[in-house]
Parts: sequence; structure tokens; C-alpha cells
Amino acid sequence: KIESDRLWSSLMELAEIGGTEKGGVCRIALTDLDRQGRDLFVRWAKEAGCSIKVDQLGNIFARREGRDPAKPPVMTGSHLDTQPTGGKFDGAYGVMAGLEVLRVLHDSGYVTEAPIEVAVWTNEEGCRFAPAMVASGVFGGAFTLDHALGIKDRDGVSFAEALKAIGYDGKEPVGGRKVGAFFEAHIEQGPILEQQNKTIGVVTGAQGQRWYEISWTGMESHAGTTPMEGRRDALVGAAELIVECRRIGNRPNGRSTIGVIESQPQSRNTIPGRVFMTVDFRHPDDGELTRMDAEMRAAAADIASRHRLEVKIEQIWYFPPSPFARELVDSVRRGAEQAGYAHMDIVSGAGHDACYVSRVAPTAMIFVPCKDGISHNEIEDADKADIGAGAQILLQAMVDRANS
Amino acid sequence: KIESDRLWSSLMELAEIGGTEKGGVCRIALTDLDRQGRDLFVRWAKEAGCSIKVDQLGNIFARREGRDPAKPPVMTGSHLDTQPTGGKFDGAYGVMAGLEVLRVLHDSGYVTEAPIEVAVWTNEEGCRFAPAMVASGVFGGAFTLDHALGIKDRDGVSFAEALKAIGYDGKEPVGGRKVGAFFEAHIEQGPILEQQNKTIGVVTGAQGQRWYEISWTGMESHAGTTPMEGRRDALVGAAELIVECRRIGNRPNGRSTIGVIESQPQSRNTIPGRVFMTVDFRHPDDGELTRMDAEMRAAAADIASRHRLEVKIEQIWYFPPSPFARELVDSVRRGAEQAGYAHMDIVSGAGHDACYVSRVAPTAMIFVPCKDGISHNEIEDADKADIGAGAQILLQAMVDRANS
Ligand SMILES: NC(=O)NCCC(=O)O
Ligand SMILES: NC(=O)NCCC(=O)O
Repeated sequence: KIESDRLWSSLMELAEIGGTEKGGVCRIALTDLDRQGRDLFVRWAKEAGCSIKVDQLGNIFARREGRDPAKPPVMTGSHLDTQPTGGKFDGAYGVMAGLEVLRVLHDSGYVTEAPIEVAVWTNEEGCRFAPAMVASGVFGGAFTLDHALGIKDRDGVSFAEALKAIGYDGKEPVGGRKVGAFFEAHIEQGPILEQQNKTIGVVTGAQGQRWYEISWTGMESHAGTTPMEGRRDALVGAAELIVECRRIGNRPNGRSTIGVIESQPQSRNTIPGRVFMTVDFRHPDDGELTRMDAEMRAAAADIASRHRLEVKIEQIWYFPPSPFARELVDSVRRGAEQAGYAHMDIVSGAGHDACYVSRVAPTAMIFVPCKDGISHNEIEDADKADIGAGAQILLQAMVDRANS
Repeated sequence: KIESDRLWSSLMELAEIGGTEKGGVCRIALTDLDRQGRDLFVRWAKEAGCSIKVDQLGNIFARREGRDPAKPPVMTGSHLDTQPTGGKFDGAYGVMAGLEVLRVLHDSGYVTEAPIEVAVWTNEEGCRFAPAMVASGVFGGAFTLDHALGIKDRDGVSFAEALKAIGYDGKEPVGGRKVGAFFEAHIEQGPILEQQNKTIGVVTGAQGQRWYEISWTGMESHAGTTPMEGRRDALVGAAELIVECRRIGNRPNGRSTIGVIESQPQSRNTIPGRVFMTVDFRHPDDGELTRMDAEMRAAAADIASRHRLEVKIEQIWYFPPSPFARELVDSVRRGAEQAGYAHMDIVSGAGHDACYVSRVAPTAMIFVPCKDGISHNEIEDADKADIGAGAQILLQAMVDRANS
């Protein structure tokens, strides 16, 4: 039923918006490239007979009416923003798979009982406006609208300003309406499905995350004249914590990443007096995640006292391990079985919009493999047949649910 | 003979150009603020009866003619550029002390045998265009003119472009003429004179330096899905080397500083794939400096292989320990003794323009204490009486030499 070629070629056309030399995509949230990607999706969705609504966080909902418009919609979707070194599939796949569902229904004139909606969630990546999945987070009740609109990027531009600048500051309230079910198709972004030779990952939930912003304050002074023991080197403190965080992450199923570091005054012969860094901790077990938090805080305090630095640790995000709805997960597994795809249950290493939507609607996800498990990299790649298979499972699951 | 009040008030007036909120100065080399500082010096030097010449690297020479114009000039000077978090005294003091010498001679109508020159050396700090002291370095034969003009800052702007932009691309050849003697007055920038309660530091030479640029290449990938053991995290590699460099610096009289770090792609949930960092190693003993080099290279190679990173180490500067001319050092010590100032011999922890000039002319330096030994910091401070004392020694030494 799914036309894999059409789905693939739409993915490739979308990937030209923000396309990079190395074959990746850099389409950062709420930039003009993001707007271009949204505009393309809106045009395609309208061509497939949908109406469009945009909410106050710029989340887009393309709706195909059902036989019973009063029924809560069965929804799918993902995001169009990317990492700075992003690929063609992360997010885009889930949106284009939803579009392909709309196109199949439109072409065949098939009308479901409940309406079908495809969502584009704003700023899923969290690389510009932290944390990740903030707009689906407001939809799911995890953050307030005002909090989301007030988040600033590292240049001091607010979410609200950036949203307005690209003209996607819609009027619809964020959430507060009933959603019958939510499905999200996504590449795995990790190596497991590929290693296990599976086409479909039946996602049972996502691991927990804690994100931090850490500021070190020492004292600028001369690189040549300041004795080693008199130094208050903020970058040495930060470096020791990076090494400690690596050690803390090195536990079964642990993950620990320092993605951003900014040192001041950035002069070769001045001891750095200020450093800003981020920490991203993950674990599927909430207790382990709590222990990682405690170990990191203890390490930072020790480093600060040894080097006479001030350290400020702010946990800016806590995302608990999020299980999906058993009933919907089962339906995805059944769909894969019936279609004859090799499949396995899997816990997502990444957070996804689906995780926040799962707080207000029964939710499940469908993973497909990606090449060498690599994502958040311009060489991110996937197989056309797998991409089609995931969309096929999505179509089946959505139609079944919309008619039930 | 020196008017401390006049010297002090000129220093304070100059410090307004690029003055910061915290009382420091940010007057980066070859910016418009640098031009303003230079213009002020040129005006003051002309008012003190000097002629001005500017060479092809923007070095300024204010000349007061001697009774015998054929005699090589007795020169002093320092620099007007500062660190991003610079103070009012580093460099500026040496130039203003030279100006004060010119003013005293001008006011009294005293004419020396040899001419007197006050130099303003371009880009001494090395924070914008690495390495430090590059323009006095060409004067002293350590680098070629073309090399200096071609150096690029981190934004890709060349020394030649920036020099032209501020209109100080002079016509005079750089160096190649005889200098009778060179003296430089400077704040110590370290804690020794203050701790030892001395007014004058008789500088016997400067310690050696090696500057490096190090690039790490790993692989961007997803912070949540990439297993710890599969990572090629360039920032973890850099952090481990920062910790190692700190250890390497922790030896008697050693210094080790990482002043600049740039990580890419700067996303909280993407493993950093590329890091650029600088290293500044110093030691008064050249053999120890060589051992530090070897230890750092071994550590980097080990880190790179453990984390499957590529590391590129480029030593961009080698500045050997530089002793000054015994005869001139003795004259500074004698001057301090005769004037009754508490004094001590000292090795400079910083590099100075005088070090490169010392390759083509007998050279010495005069240090005065600075508050808490702090420099390359906006709170850098010094005592007016000490500032005057150093200038007095300078005046005496220059006049003696010019008449000998
Ligand atoms: N899917 C994805 O990469 N989401 C970004 C949030 C995260 O880092 O988990
Ligand atoms: N005097 C001074 O701070 N010079 C800059 C070069 C160095 O770091 O030694």
C-alpha cells in the first residue's frame, strides 16, 4: 500500500533544504531553513487534501477528516528540525511517513472512522532551545507554554522571537484536546536493529535523561607568571569534570555526553576564568540516573574545592524513563508479525516527541534500522526498503486504530 | 626628574581607550581601539618634540634627535595592545614610561649624545595573532616579514589586512638598522617582587616557551544511542590532554596553560567530533621545556589511540630562554642601588618585546611590582610610586647609555 519510492523521493527533496556538502542536513529549529521545510510539508499535506492548523508553539497539524469528526484523531508525526551536523532521516522520516499515509488514503479515497492527523513538532532536537522535545512537552503537559516561549538560545534569542520571525506563531492552543492514539516512526539512531538483523523495532519506551548547565568561575591570570599552585583555572576544572563524567557514564546502559563547552576569555596566554558546559546523562533505570547525578555533583564539588573554583550546577531537564502504552506497542508488534518483518522489542536511547505525547494519549513508536547505528551525523543513512516497511506498519496501525 | 603624577595620569587617560566596566582594558591588536591608542601616543610624542616613523608591521618609533644623529639610538618601548581581559599596565606602562622620558628631556631641553627612541611594538600579546611579540620578533630576525603579515586570527583575518584597516601599514623596513641599546619597563605580572617587598626587578632574562595548536578529530554521533565504548568523542580526548598538561606543568618552575578551546558542533546531545585547543608551555630551563614537549606528545598519542581519535599537534612557536645583556642588566641594578630602591634579580615569566630586540641589540628590562601578582586580568593594578620608580631607573639608564 505504501509507495516506498514516493516516500523516499520526498525525503530526499526535503533533505535539500539545509543540505550540507557531506550529504547531511543542517536545518536548525526556528531558522529560515526550518520555515522552508515547514512550508514544503504544508504544501504537500494540502495537496493530499488536508486542512492545516498551527498552534502557539508552531506545532503543525495536517488533518484528514474521518467519517466521524467528533472522534479524537489518530495522530502520527515527528519533527523537521535537525542537529547542526544532522542527517536526512532523524525526524524527517516520521513526518514524511505520516505524509505518505495521508497520500495513500487520499489517492485511494479511503476514509477512516476517526480523523487522521500528522503533526510536525517544533524544536525537537533541543540543540538550539534546550531541552529537547519542548513543544510536544507542552502538548503533553510537561512544561508550561510560557516556559517554552521564554527559552533562550546561546545568542539570547527567545523561542517566541524566533517563532514569530519565521511566521509560525499560530493561534491554536497547545494541547488540551483529546488524541485517540499517537504513533511515531523514526530511525533507531543506534546500532541494535542492524546488529540483530531486524527490520522493525517495536519501541517499548525511552530511557531517562538529565540535562545540566554547569558554570565554572575561576580567575583570569597570566599563563607565564602565575605559579601552577596559585591558579584558579576554570578550564582545568571543566576538563576534570568531563573526564569524571565519562567515567560515570561507563556503567551498563549508561550514557554521558558533554556536547557544549565555552571558555572565556579564549586567549592562548591567559588562564581561563570562566567556562560554561553542558552535561547529558541517560539511563533506562531511574535509580541509576539518580546515582549518576549524585556522583557528578560530588565530583564537581571536589574539583571546585581543589582548584578554588566556583561551580554552579543547574539541572535544566529531567526526563524520566517513559514506557509506552502496552496495547499500542502490542499492535505494532502484531503488525510487524503479520507483515512478516523481522522485529524485536527495543528501548529508545533517544527522547522523542512521542514520549511527551504519551502523557496525554496512548502512544507507540516504530523504529527502522539506520546505517552503522549513526545519527546526529551528516553521514546518517537508512535503507529504502526499511523506510518503506516502517511506513507500512505505521499505515496499518493507524488505520486499524482509526476504525476501531 | 620623572613626574610620577604626569606619568600616572597619562596611563589612566590611555586606559580609557578600550576601558572595561571592571576597570580593565580590552584593546585587542589591530582593532580600531588599538588605532585610537596609537593615535594618542603619536600626538603626545609629537607634542614632546619627536618625529614619528611607522614600519611595515605597524611598529611606531618616536625619535628625539641626539647631538650626534649618526649614533645608533638608545631605545625603549613596549606595546599598546592588551588581552581580552587585560589591565591598564601590561605594555602601556613601558610605552608611557618611555613617553615620560621624552617629556622630561623635552621640558628640560636636555640633549643626549645618541638619539632617543620610544617604540610601540605591534601585537605583543599574541592573543589575536599568534605567536606573541611577532612584530618585535621580525625586528629581531626571529620571523620573516611575510610570515608575520600572513598570520591569521581565528576569524581568518590576516595581520596585513587588519594592519591596513587601521592605517598603520607604514613604509619603513622592519629592523635592519643599528640600535645602541634597548630597555623595557614593565610590570612584573607575577607575585615575586611584591612578596619580597622589592620596588625594582632587575630582569636577567625570560623563560622559554612553546606554543601549540592541537586539533582532535573523532566522530559526531548521538548522545543517547551511541554506546560509551563505541564513541570517538573529541572533547573527551581534549579534556584528558588538558588534565595531562596540568600534570606536566606541575614541576618546579613549570607553567602549562590551555587558553583556547573550540568544540564542534556545539550541540548538547551530539558527541563532539572536532576540537581545537592551544597549549602554552613554559620553563626557564630549555631541557625541561623539551621534556614537557615529549611528555605532552606521548600523552596525546596515548589518548588518541585509546579513544580512536586523530590528533594533530603543531608547535607554532618556540621561544628559547632568553638572557639579557649582562652589561645593561648591571647598569639597571646599579641604577636601582644608587637611587636607593629595594631591588632583586628576577627571571621574567612572560615574554616581552625586549627579548626579541635582544637578538640585535644589547637589552635589559626593569620590572615593578603589580598588585597580588595579577596580570591578564581586568583587576591588574600597580602602585603609583613604583610606576614612577621604574621610570626613573629607565630615564637614568637611557641617558647614561646615550651619553656613553
Ligand atoms: N531523536 C532525537 O535525536 N531526539 C533528540 C533528543 C535526544 O537527544 O534524545
Ligand atoms: N607581557 C606579556 O604579557 N606578554 C605576552 C606574551 C606572553 O604570554 O608571555
